[in-house]
Amino acid sequence: MFLLTSVLVAVVCLLMVWIFQNADGGTQRRKGEPRARAEARPWVDEDLKDSTDVHQLEEDADGWQVSEEEVDHIPFSHTRYPEKEMLKRSQEFYELLNKRRSVRFISNEQVPMEVIDNVIKAAGTAPSGAHTEPWTFVVVKDPDVKHKIREIVEEEEEINYLKRMGPQWVSDLKKLRTKWIKEYLDTAPVLILIFKRVHGFAANGKKKIHYYNEISVSIACGILLAALQNAGLVTVTTTPLNCGPRLRVLLNRPANEKLLILLPVGYPSEEATVPDFARKPLDQIMVTV
Amino acid sequence: MFLLTSVLVAVVCLLMVWIFQNADGGTQRRKGEPRARAEARPWVDEDLKDSTDVHQLEEDADGWQVSEEEVDHIPFSHTRYPEKEMLKRSQEFYELLNKRRSVRFISNEQVPMEVIDNVIKAAGTAPSGAHTEPWTFVVVKDPDVKHKIREIVEEEEEINYLKRMGPQWVSDLKKLRTKWIKEYLDTAPVLILIFKRVHGFAANGKKKIHYYNEISVSIACGILLAALQNAGLVTVTTTPLNCGPRLRVLLNRPANEKLLILLPVGYPSEEATVPDFARKPLDQIMVTV
Repeated sequence: MFLLTSVLVAVVCLLMVWIFQNADGGTQRRKGEPRARAEARPWVDEDLKDSTDVHQLEEDADGWQVSEEEVDHIPFSHTRYPEKEMLKRSQEFYELLNKRRSVRFISNEQVPMEVIDNVIKAAGTAPSGAHTEPWTFVVVKDPDVKHKIREIVEEEEEINYLKRMGPQWVSDLKKLRTKWIKEYLDTAPVLILIFKRVHGFAANGKKKIHYYNEISVSIACGILLAALQNAGLVTVTTTPLNCGPRLRVLLNRPANEKLLILLPVGYPSEEATVPDFARKPLDQIMVTV
Repeated sequence: MFLLTSVLVAVVCLLMVWIFQNADGGTQRRKGEPRARAEARPWVDEDLKDSTDVHQLEEDADGWQVSEEEVDHIPFSHTRYPEKEMLKRSQEFYELLNKRRSVRFISNEQVPMEVIDNVIKAAGTAPSGAHTEPWTFVVVKDPDVKHKIREIVEEEEEINYLKRMGPQWVSDLKKLRTKWIKEYLDTAPVLILIFKRVHGFAANGKKKIHYYNEISVSIACGILLAALQNAGLVTVTTTPLNCGPRLRVLLNRPANEKLLILLPVGYPSEEATVPDFARKPLDQIMVTV
């Protein structure tokens, strides 16, 4: 009887161990789920990760190059306009930019390359975390390379539309008549692929942190869009989902560069149309305190 | 004797349960570490998360509002300049923006509020994922609110410098003489706090996805910086680390808005200085294929 009791107690206790273990395993799986889902839907947390990102986070613990140099400070020289001129300039700049639209119908007519140089020089004046200037602008003119880019983008886009995006996103984009056929990648005389450099290299080859590199490169892209509009060229801002690694390899960019944005640039084609929508009025985007 | 054995077996088994539990706890902590480190160093993966982000990811699985509306398409009207004028415009735009510098010494002189309206209207012309326009520009003029913002930013910045950033970043920023005293938050006549709306709401109150909202808002910020420079105002682009949640509450912004960038705006003060550094030449940021 006593032996039976002790065996029973042992069985009950071992059962408890098993239950505890399983309960923990379940918790871990549940904890793991949101992360897996986040990786599968990169557009939700607005980060364009590819498989090397996790690796980089792990490497980050140490080994970053310490830079010792001090930079001199000099007086800032400023151009100040009279108030009336400030008003006029700011009004005209708004009106110029308010005519900008994302144009998906781009003519195959060539554009002056010196203008492309100038708009990229303008983009390169953007501020960046700790002045790291973490951007590379790849200007593609070669028709064969453009066509290879189109093939990669369309292949991935088709998978995106059919499998990755889900009915919600497809429905949202339907309004804009976006589809996975990207003719402009062949017709636009110039494609500008904007890569973020997720880290840099110091003179001795050690890694150099690029603080907030995605925000910095996106800011540079905003300036680039303004510069294109100012020059009378059109584009459409695209973030080709899941194409980054293949396009990076095609264009021989190093592993520390990740594709952020692809801009087909040119003149609008004769039959170019745009969605007939308005922008939010100021009181819906601005709050004064 | 038998009773003693059964008690002993029970004690051993309970001990096993306890050991298993602790072992699991240890594993969980170890697994948690890289994540905690990632959260503690958000500038590495260039995302400004606050504590509500995980929550939102979990909610994301379903419940997003499906919008059925179709948008008409209309002919695109374009202003095309002769090539010579394109060259001139693009050159002048680059030269204007190349004079922009991040200025940390801002005079307390008032600026015309109509100009602020215009630069924010210009920023609002930025493209955004599926035309969601996921931005809110909070313009702070009230001296008390500015001072409260300064207190929050300096408190968090001091912790950042002393604890969160590590010697590498402090060393990188030393070159730029950045410190945790942010006098410009009091002196600048206007602070513009740029919030990203991480999701929107449909008419029926359901959530609406904001695709790539951080990139979109950063692009809008780039246009805002160009507009400020065009108007003859100065600013410094700051991403106040870990201040987002407190500033959001201070400014009564809803939970779907996260602080991305804070810009103090005004005229430079008389004694304003800037670091004496150059920008990368075109051949270091552009590749032609």
